[in-house]
Amino acid sequence: MRIVLDAMGSDTHPEPELRAAIEAAREFGDPVLLAGPAALLQERLRALGASETGVRCVDAPETLEMADKPVDAARGKARSSMAVGMELLKDGEADAFVTAGNTGGAMANALFRLGRIHGVRRPALTAVFPTRTGRAVVLDIGANADCRPEFLVQFAIFGSLYAERVLHIASPRVALLSNGEEPGKGNALVKEAYPLLEAAGLNFIGNIEPKELFGGGADVAVADGFSGNILLKSSEAVANLITRLLREQIRSGLLTSIGGLLAQPAFRRVGKLLDPSEYGAAPLLGIDGLVFVGHGRSDAHALVSAIRVARQAVEGGLLAAMRQAIHTRLSADSQERAT
Amino acid sequence: MRIVLDAMGSDTHPEPELRAAIEAAREFGDPVLLAGPAALLQERLRALGASETGVRCVDAPETLEMADKPVDAARGKARSSMAVGMELLKDGEADAFVTAGNTGGAMANALFRLGRIHGVRRPALTAVFPTRTGRAVVLDIGANADCRPEFLVQFAIFGSLYAERVLHIASPRVALLSNGEEPGKGNALVKEAYPLLEAAGLNFIGNIEPKELFGGGADVAVADGFSGNILLKSSEAVANLITRLLREQIRSGLLTSIGGLLAQPAFRRVGKLLDPSEYGAAPLLGIDGLVFVGHGRSDAHALVSAIRVARQAVEGGLLAAMRQAIHTRLSADSQERAT
Repeated sequence: MRIVLDAMGSDTHPEPELRAAIEAAREFGDPVLLAGPAALLQERLRALGASETGVRCVDAPETLEMADKPVDAARGKARSSMAVGMELLKDGEADAFVTAGNTGGAMANALFRLGRIHGVRRPALTAVFPTRTGRAVVLDIGANADCRPEFLVQFAIFGSLYAERVLHIASPRVALLSNGEEPGKGNALVKEAYPLLEAAGLNFIGNIEPKELFGGGADVAVADGFSGNILLKSSEAVANLITRLLREQIRSGLLTSIGGLLAQPAFRRVGKLLDPSEYGAAPLLGIDGLVFVGHGRSDAHALVSAIRVARQAVEGGLLAAMRQAIHTRLSADSQERAT
Repeated sequence: MRIVLDAMGSDTHPEPELRAAIEAAREFGDPVLLAGPAALLQERLRALGASETGVRCVDAPETLEMADKPVDAARGKARSSMAVGMELLKDGEADAFVTAGNTGGAMANALFRLGRIHGVRRPALTAVFPTRTGRAVVLDIGANADCRPEFLVQFAIFGSLYAERVLHIASPRVALLSNGEEPGKGNALVKEAYPLLEAAGLNFIGNIEPKELFGGGADVAVADGFSGNILLKSSEAVANLITRLLREQIRSGLLTSIGGLLAQPAFRRVGKLLDPSEYGAAPLLGIDGLVFVGHGRSDAHALVSAIRVARQAVEGGLLAAMRQAIHTRLSADSQERAT
């Protein structure tokens, strides 16, 4: 199996990427392809004492700048590390692409270079959330601010397959993110999507509110990219706020400081349970290729997790399963229209 | 000043309400009107040794049941504690109404008995969120799942006045909840509302993401009721999840348990900073009367906070200010149309 890692993605690239590639090649026993300025990368690899067999550099001399507009860069910079990495997927030279670069750039490059799976209306940015009892796949978390009901049905198909093939959840419970549990609650989009999801042949369990979602009440939650993004970002923001307030309050007194020190292992374990980097990276589902986008702040550890998740997606045959599911649904739809 | 408290609102009514009414009358030096089955309430008051001068019972013999549909109950049950309480507002016998009852029921009763302020398109359910540096008013948090851009402009006017008159924030910074900070980010609704908000004569600071909102970046954030509800509910859910995970992990070992005990005052202070009951109740803004809805789980302490906030709204002249602001805007709009 060959995973391509974008060497220039993370905020402090390429150091975390170099270490992650070396570590992943060692851990998984397969070479990692590293897309970036090859001369530079090889020099660094030698300095790190890495074997040429574990990490293979693929030259991508162009750099994406912060000022680049994602769509223009995707078209214009054919030799950027993202473009080169995705072309390797397209040519069948690699099985999955992992980047800690800009999400908009990754989506633009993916749409331009790999395209959508035949029949897919919109690809979705997907996150795996920690819950009280395990994990939940949530999509779309920001690629499509405005959605039509049919998009949500496709998101549900993607998410369900992801939960099944990558997280190994049998018959994943699929829910519709809403502002009330009862059928009939929700905005116009939710109300229209509800009956379509009931008829989609998934294990659809109805509407879900954030409380039940974080409580482990569903394996997959679908939402328009605006609400999904609010869900993701407010969760992160509140976790952050609580952490900061707790730290301040604990440090404000001697006894509480000592208590904080003693309780530190517990804090660390909770931090780890909630840490998105433990869950790898966000897949762009619906793209005709396996693309995973990690956080810009990813360190080597987070990137290795991302590579691990990408490998699970390859092993689970996620892409073929998604192509098949969308194809089957398209055929069913056109048969329905014909009758 | 006269505040009416719904005696039958909270999950464990009327005990918390009775205690809150007694406590509030003592603390604020004004009698509290208590709407509910008068004979029962008076008997309990006597048992609690409360003076008849501090708490005045207003008879409301009908009870709202869980099975009652809010709208039907609002029309049908004219002698429910909510209906009676709001009629007191309408007749000028009281200045504000506080309930820990069902939000849908409160909104239905408010619309039916008090109506909207002249010119208001939709009333908004409003929450005050804790932030890193203080508080932020967020609306709508669930009354209107589908909104038009003009609704958001009115929400911004309500929220700005609430921040000014009740939270005493001068020239409140008003933002539009979005999935990106830059102008042009957002869903169709946000993009349409943006220029309207720029022209609304408020201190509009543009789009805001949850992270900056919780960081204290705005005093008011407006959203459609669906996204606003997701923001509220996911914040509560994550806070809950973190608390539960921390408690479990701290209790899982001896040293961490001791640490947890020592650090407990810090945990309590953070809990208090984040506790919605410290911020009183959610006002229904846009209704032609001051109505505050507290959590069903409210205890006497939370209800006293709610009464305190309701009193601040009365003292701040919130209702008159809102009537005036909407009137001014309507006149400006019709002048604009005339020219």
